[in-house]
Amino acid sequence: MVALPLMSGMPTIVDMPLPEHPRMSDVAARAGVSLSTVSRALRGASGVAPAVRAEVERAAAELGYVVSRGASSLVTGVTGRIAVLVPFLQPWFFGVALAGVSTRLRASGQDMLVYQVGDVDELDAYVRSLPLRSNVDAVIAVALDLGDTAVARLDEIGLPVVFCGRRVPGRACVFTDDTAAAAGATRHLLNLGHRRVAYVCSRDQTGFSWSSRDRLRGYEAAMAEAGAEAVVVTEPPGHQGGALAMARLLSMAEPPTAVFAESDDVAMGVLQVARRSGIDVPGDVSVMGFDDNDVAALLDLTTVAQPVTEMGERAAELAVRAVRAAGPVRDHVHLDTRLVVRQSTAVPRSRREGPAGGTEQRG
Amino acid sequence: MVALPLMSGMPTIVDMPLPEHPRMSDVAARAGVSLSTVSRALRGASGVAPAVRAEVERAAAELGYVVSRGASSLVTGVTGRIAVLVPFLQPWFFGVALAGVSTRLRASGQDMLVYQVGDVDELDAYVRSLPLRSNVDAVIAVALDLGDTAVARLDEIGLPVVFCGRRVPGRACVFTDDTAAAAGATRHLLNLGHRRVAYVCSRDQTGFSWSSRDRLRGYEAAMAEAGAEAVVVTEPPGHQGGALAMARLLSMAEPPTAVFAESDDVAMGVLQVARRSGIDVPGDVSVMGFDDNDVAALLDLTTVAQPVTEMGERAAELAVRAVRAAGPVRDHVHLDTRLVVRQSTAVPRSRREGPAGGTEQRG
Repeated sequence: MVALPLMSGMPTIVDMPLPEHPRMSDVAARAGVSLSTVSRALRGASGVAPAVRAEVERAAAELGYVVSRGASSLVTGVTGRIAVLVPFLQPWFFGVALAGVSTRLRASGQDMLVYQVGDVDELDAYVRSLPLRSNVDAVIAVALDLGDTAVARLDEIGLPVVFCGRRVPGRACVFTDDTAAAAGATRHLLNLGHRRVAYVCSRDQTGFSWSSRDRLRGYEAAMAEAGAEAVVVTEPPGHQGGALAMARLLSMAEPPTAVFAESDDVAMGVLQVARRSGIDVPGDVSVMGFDDNDVAALLDLTTVAQPVTEMGERAAELAVRAVRAAGPVRDHVHLDTRLVVRQSTAVPRSRREGPAGGTEQRG
Repeated sequence: MVALPLMSGMPTIVDMPLPEHPRMSDVAARAGVSLSTVSRALRGASGVAPAVRAEVERAAAELGYVVSRGASSLVTGVTGRIAVLVPFLQPWFFGVALAGVSTRLRASGQDMLVYQVGDVDELDAYVRSLPLRSNVDAVIAVALDLGDTAVARLDEIGLPVVFCGRRVPGRACVFTDDTAAAAGATRHLLNLGHRRVAYVCSRDQTGFSWSSRDRLRGYEAAMAEAGAEAVVVTEPPGHQGGALAMARLLSMAEPPTAVFAESDDVAMGVLQVARRSGIDVPGDVSVMGFDDNDVAALLDLTTVAQPVTEMGERAAELAVRAVRAAGPVRDHVHLDTRLVVRQSTAVPRSRREGPAGGTEQRG
């Protein structure tokens, strides 16, 4: 039995003046539903149609009816909040994913708490503080390696966790196949006639890997498949890392004719160094990104598009389901990527000018 | 008198095994502070030094001490949460501002709820639902025109509001002087010798204005000051708007020699059309942005830099102060912008080639 403040009283007709201290019965009368529906709708409980929930919320808002989520959560154990953990807030990927989560949570009346846990220490501190906070119903980890300890801790306190952007066996997760997508992008460059295809991998000191391993694996597999030698340079993430990587690639005895960057952000740094060095893209070197972020189209960057908004929405959906089910949800939602060909990739110059062009520089 | 679950019990020595059901007294003993300090620290109340708060939180986390924020907030009226309202989550500006807010709130142990209210209807629905939610201690509005009705509603329910990115008379706010900054950027182009300086203004259907009015005012003032005719094109925000605006400008009887875009995002669209049209920047046309976002440096865009991270941090600081003071905080925090000159602006061709070059095309 839920101990909510049910008060008796005459139903209020919509045309009557608004009651000064509105009760739940006023909300029920105004929305034209039963008291228990109001109670369930305002607690965010299951079994209330979205339209009915909206109607109840509208009536409550119009009446200025105040329900204390704090009081409600003591009774129901449901806080109406989902925590979203991100390693960074600034990069495009996270803003888009958060927007997807936000849209989906709004639809079911849940609030979104956002925590930026930029390194393993911050992540650890957050997870350790969770019992103390006891203020969320589920956690969505966006493009984060939580690590076994953190996941065990979440299990221990009974908080459902959904992984967004990573495939995690036995766990609720929404992901794209980074390995297959990277292999496909690499094959695209090989099929254009490139043999020296370099891969720019991002890794920072904290162990957060941004799908690095999977994409690297896909690149390496495709190169091995074609009997081509893998050329991997590893630098910090972002523009700067891309610029550093391109500088290194251009200092090799035999620079690559194509560069596949782990992300569009990294590709931007590669493009910048190319532009400043007077190296024509794709004339001298082809550049491939990964993400299809908002700048990729502007810069005519060929890239692998991920459905990031949908990833956020689907992750939120799993989280909401886990809260309502009050039991483990282990769905794997596999979303597709697609290769978006723009003007930063083309057949290598050696192919266009005949094989001599390609070997001249080596002699 | 605050009714927290104070339990008597022997102080626990740090080297002893951890208690199975830790009490507040265990936390106090482990942190080496008084019970009331633990209570105040865990409630997020004022008068606790950050180092002490951290020590208490560490001790509580190590012991697995669970305090119910719900129960605590019923007693204290403090939820430990701040809501941040943003019109969008994707653009760079909002990610950076949120990161600033997040960093500052973490320092005082507060949680960040994020709401994307992309149009006036969503904003209205959010503000109307606030009493129903009753789950935050303050609201930070980032680059949002809340409107008088919404602000009155927040006042009515006693929620402090802090404006980030807008100067609002009589209200706590953190801002840069958009008018002065835009006037300065316009003068910079005029001083280089440009007379046809166009301004690309962003406005969408919803009435959200992104500092549009103030920047436009600054541009117009500087043009009037110089006796030059203002040329303003208004398009939707973002890359697309910039591209549309540049297409219009290039269709004029006398195209401008310099384009000042309301934001870097808009400038990207201007640059894209220029690049695709074979128009040299800054040879044929100078382009100036506003923001200094993460892509501006990559594209060598001259722009007005805003201290966005600091804006977020300072806004969070005001919100925290308003919660602790439990009374109105009306500080105006005015932060400086600076003009970052890169390679997208230069003296006009007419100046370099002598006055004849500029008039030839008109004949």
